[in-house]
Parts: sequence; C-alpha cells; structure tokens
Amino acid sequence: MIDRHRARIERIQRAAAANPRVTGLAGGLPAEAQFPKRAFADAFLRALSQSGTPALQYGWVEGSETLRSWIASRLRARGAEIAAADVIITSGAQQALAIALELVARPGARIGVDLETYPAALGLMRARRLVPVAFDDKAAVFYAMPAVGNPHGFAMETESRRALLTRSSGMIVEDDAYADLRFDGPAPRPLLADEPRRVLHVGTFSKTLSPGLRVGWLITPRRLRGRALEIKQSSDLQASSLAQAVLEEYLTGGGGDAPAAFDHRLIRLRRFYRARAAMMMRALRAHLPDWKFRAPDGGFAIWAEAGDRSQRINEISFLQKAVDARVVFDPGSMFRASGAARPLAVRFCFSTAAPADFDGAFRRLARVCRGMI
Amino acid sequence: MIDRHRARIERIQRAAAANPRVTGLAGGLPAEAQFPKRAFADAFLRALSQSGTPALQYGWVEGSETLRSWIASRLRARGAEIAAADVIITSGAQQALAIALELVARPGARIGVDLETYPAALGLMRARRLVPVAFDDKAAVFYAMPAVGNPHGFAMETESRRALLTRSSGMIVEDDAYADLRFDGPAPRPLLADEPRRVLHVGTFSKTLSPGLRVGWLITPRRLRGRALEIKQSSDLQASSLAQAVLEEYLTGGGGDAPAAFDHRLIRLRRFYRARAAMMMRALRAHLPDWKFRAPDGGFAIWAEAGDRSQRINEISFLQKAVDARVVFDPGSMFRASGAARPLAVRFCFSTAAPADFDGAFRRLARVCRGMI
Repeated sequence: MIDRHRARIERIQRAAAANPRVTGLAGGLPAEAQFPKRAFADAFLRALSQSGTPALQYGWVEGSETLRSWIASRLRARGAEIAAADVIITSGAQQALAIALELVARPGARIGVDLETYPAALGLMRARRLVPVAFDDKAAVFYAMPAVGNPHGFAMETESRRALLTRSSGMIVEDDAYADLRFDGPAPRPLLADEPRRVLHVGTFSKTLSPGLRVGWLITPRRLRGRALEIKQSSDLQASSLAQAVLEEYLTGGGGDAPAAFDHRLIRLRRFYRARAAMMMRALRAHLPDWKFRAPDGGFAIWAEAGDRSQRINEISFLQKAVDARVVFDPGSMFRASGAARPLAVRFCFSTAAPADFDGAFRRLARVCRGMI
Repeated sequence: MIDRHRARIERIQRAAAANPRVTGLAGGLPAEAQFPKRAFADAFLRALSQSGTPALQYGWVEGSETLRSWIASRLRARGAEIAAADVIITSGAQQALAIALELVARPGARIGVDLETYPAALGLMRARRLVPVAFDDKAAVFYAMPAVGNPHGFAMETESRRALLTRSSGMIVEDDAYADLRFDGPAPRPLLADEPRRVLHVGTFSKTLSPGLRVGWLITPRRLRGRALEIKQSSDLQASSLAQAVLEEYLTGGGGDAPAAFDHRLIRLRRFYRARAAMMMRALRAHLPDWKFRAPDGGFAIWAEAGDRSQRINEISFLQKAVDARVVFDPGSMFRASGAARPLAVRFCFSTAAPADFDGAFRRLARVCRGMI
C-alpha cells in the first residue's frame, strides 16, 4: 500500500522531470549554475597528467590520503579530534549511511528518526528491515541531521541536541550533508566532536560541489573501523578514483589558494541559496497564504504544511494536478516512515528552478488547491 | 587464523606497492599505458558542455540510458535477448556481484565456486556469511567466470558449462569481467544467452577502459529487477554521473566511428596482453622450470603451482622474501575459500610491470626459492 503510493509518486515525478516545461521544485538537487565546471575541467586534466594516472587506476579501499587529510582537517577546525586515518572515502553519503547502519543495527532494530526525514535513509532502513521510530522513543540507534535537517531545513534545537547526547545512550548516525550550507555561516560543531565513541559521522561533496562525483565520507569510532573497511571493500572495492582525483586537484592542487577558494565558494553558495530561499518564501506567502512554514536555516528546501482548508486534498491527486499545471514538488509522505500523507505537506526545493519561475509556479499551485477544496 | 594470514599478506603487499623499486606482479590491474587518457579528456570536456551538465548532477538509479543501450546491444551481438531496460549500471562489477548475491542468497546459503576464485567475491561471501563450496556440490547459487576465469585465466570447459546449465538448477551469477580480453578474439556467448531466467550477469569497464571509473553493470532475470533497483538505490543512490558521462561520450559521442573505435581498442588490448603473457611464460619457464602452469586464454595473469621441491616453502615467508628481493605477487591462498596455502601457488600478473623486468624478477624469485628449500 505504502509501496504503491511511493511508486505512483515516482512515476509522476519521473514524467515531470522529462518535461522541460515543468517548473521543478522537487529532488533536492544543487543548482547547476554553481557547478565548478571550468575548475573541474582543469582539475581533471591535471589529474590525468599525474605519474601512474591514479585517476584511472584501482586505488585502496579507504580512499585518497590527500582527501582524507583534507576532510579530517576541516573537522578538526570544527572541534572534532579526527585524523586522516579515521576517514573512509565512500561512494557518496548514501553509502556511508548504508555502512554505518550495517555496523550498528541488525534487522529488526529500532532507529530513532525525525517525524519527517531523508527519504533515502528511510529506503535504506526498509531494505534492511530496520524499524524507524519517533526520536524520543527508546532506540538503539539514532539517525540525526543536527547542522541542517532535511526536509525541514532547521538546525537541531540546543535542547534536542543535549537530550540526544546526554539522555540517550544509543549509537548516533550523524548526517552532516548540508552542514556547510547553513545560511548564517560556517558549519557548526558536529556531534562527532562531543561523542566520538558513539557517533558515526557522514559527509559528502554532493551539496557543495557536485553530486555526480558520488564522493562522501564516513568516520566511525575506531573500534568499528576495521569492519567498516571490510563492508566498504565487499560493497564496491573503493570510491571512484576519477572523482577522487578531480576533487584532490580541485581542493588542494593548482596553487596554494585552493583551500581558501573552497571557503570563498561556500560563502558564495550560502548567499546564493539564502537569496533563493527568500524569493521562494515571498512567492509562497503571496499565493498560499494559509500554508504554514518556517524560514530554513540552510539547505535547498522549504517544508510547508497545507492550510486547514487544503487538508482534505488527496496527496497523489494534488501532485498529479500540479504537474498538469507544470509544477512538480516532493509530497510530504515521502519523508515519513509511515508513508502517511496527512497532514498534507510539501517539500519545495528552491535550489534548481529559476527564481523568476517561483511566482508563476506558486500561483498555479494555488489555483490547483482552490480547484480541489 | 585465516583472517590474520590475509591481513599479513595485505600488509606486505601494501608496503611493496609503496616501493617503486619492487616489480609488481600482484593486483590484477590493467596496464596504465593502455588508459585512453586523451580520449577521456576530450570526452570529459564534451560532457561538461552538455545542457544541464548531467555529468555533475544527480541521475536516476538505473543509470544512463545511452550506456544501458550500448551494453544491451553488445550482449545481443553475443546471443542474449537483452534490452536497455534490463541493464542496471552499478558502481563497478563488485557492486553488481554484491547486489546479485543479496538477491539470490540468504546468510548461510551455499555458493558453488571454483577451487580458486576471485578474492573480492570470496570477501563478499564472508561479509554476508555465505558459504563457498566446491563447484560440483549441490549449491543453491553458483558463481562462475565462464569467458575467462580469475585467477587461472581459462575459459570454462564445454563440459563444465553444459553441466552448469543442464545438471544444476541453482541461480548462476556470471562474472563476465574479462570476456572482452580473450586472446583469441571476441567475447563468447554468455550463459545469460542460454538461461536468462537463472543467470545474473555482471560486467564492467574496469578491464577494457579504466577501473578508476567504477562503472559496471548487472542484468537480472526480470522478476528480480525491481528488488535489484531498490538495493542499488539504498546502497549508493546511483553510479557516478561523472564516470557515466565520460563513458557515454567516449563510447557513443564524438562522431560515428566511436563503436568501431572500441572494437579496434579491444583488438589492440588482446594483442598487447597476449604478448605480455607470452613474455612472462618465457621468463617463468626459464627461471622456475619445475613450476606448473598452463597458457591462459585471456585476462591479466598466469596461475602457477610451485614445483614439488618448493611445496615445503611457507607462503608468507616466500612473499616477504620475494618483496625483499623486489618482487611482489598474489599468493595462492588469497583465491581459496578455505584460505589454504597448500598447494603453494601464485598468481603472476603480467598486466602492469614492464616486460623488460620479467626476466630479472623471475630470476630473483628462483633465487629466493632455492634459498628456502
């Protein structure tokens, strides 16, 4: 039943994605305009000229030493006592999540998650027969996005963070995917810094550079590292050498200002996405004034709950009629472990569509809503 | 015990790999000289100029339609009735194996394998608590490399192939990694062509183009495809868009002669590796005349069993002394489910070291052997 609901959503969204006339507010993709195309082209050419061409050859399971050092040093700057040897390069953050859950949760285990959370994490739990439960339940493992949540876009409240660290004793999988994209500045102190023996930390280059690379990372408590490497190796041997080499050259090659260049990039990205969020909020307020939402702290999206009068609307019909009206979005059920479509809510991504299209898109959505009440 | 043995081998091999003065006959890596560096650079630049820059963006879980069509059409030419919709692009052949085994084998299941077989497949079985058994045993699942085996380098005998297809009824995971590198010509008819309802077919670009891409593929019987896609998605969302885009442009872009160019490349590669195999066999015969081996049908390596007098030699000591004498190889125990080091045997890879070094390497190995008898 839930499976069928999800499959219908995917079918509608795939059809919409294939139609360039549809305004895309779905997917949580980074803005194409922000891809560092020229810098990656340069980085790729430099990588190909390296002796032995490691970019095209097999590499070690743990990934590039240079990249691991870079990641460790950024985490140290945020307060975590991490060395390069603690970092495992993974095929994106999703694989890091998959390894983390395999390390700490057996089939049937209860995983504490937010009421709404990252759909691919829920998909992973389903595939592994893990049981997502509410965050304040007794769970053996918690899945948290403390820096910037998805789909809500909020930083975890100080009180919730304290509760997670002190009141619970379970293992914590910390998904740090959007941490560098907090609108108010640098990434905050990670849970990893406070509880290195309980936290499995997951990061990625997908949001700040490019998801097409499929490069992320996993840091586990040291006692779990050997097993983590075994799982990584048996899963796919290693992350793409090509993508790692491009990243290496981009982040640390081509002159001494490369690290500063990445920080400048982050400042630009935060400004870019914050401006987009503001534009989307204006359009949302103007056309769907009874919908409830809060300004996000970062990330790519706004989570909005439909107004009371719209709560009777059927989610799938709403999505289908929206796509007929040339707007696609991520319906709320995707983010709920139960698959519940109530309360009717939507994740609207401001990261990919042209801001000039926001106003028209929400005007059309408002018309669809009125027609369905 | 076996774990410790394996860990010691890895430690010695890693130290050897870091020393450029050691002649590398280990690893099963493709020859760096054969990487299509310039063509990949062109392909990457073309990929970056595509509208929407799909090379850097998220893509669908099943992978590039263009690549899947290309793979399907090559398999059709070998006799398999396969459409693009049957192909799933994976993060290398290892992930295809991992998905295939997850689809057809529960923990505790018996997997029929060759007496010596691909170490990463054995590692995967260990990680999943599957039980590798001899090929002629009753097994629920068989893991086979019919075109070119690893480590032996032989095509499967007609009789064994017939037995697998007719006498057994289990599912078959067909690892086709080296099929395009048969010295005598084009890849043979795959098992997939004969038993599409029982065969899960695994392929890769790692041996013919570059392992650094981490792009392979999986074809499952249609009834398993939905579940295969779920596992793929929960594992790492998708294979690298970057690597897929480079392959797409390399294989099908840049003018109509691209498909022919790949076939010409294969002809060159077969000639290149066959010549290397011949040179290595000469050196082996000259310096280790009592070792037993057969000329391989394809691939990157020769499997050789030590002569009777050398059978008392301890495997780990042999490897360590060989590395001290500046030669590294893959000891036989790596390829055995039991981890047995007897009979003493070695996989010698001819794919990466300079052929001019073969003679000296085997002369030094012979000296090491004599010193240990």
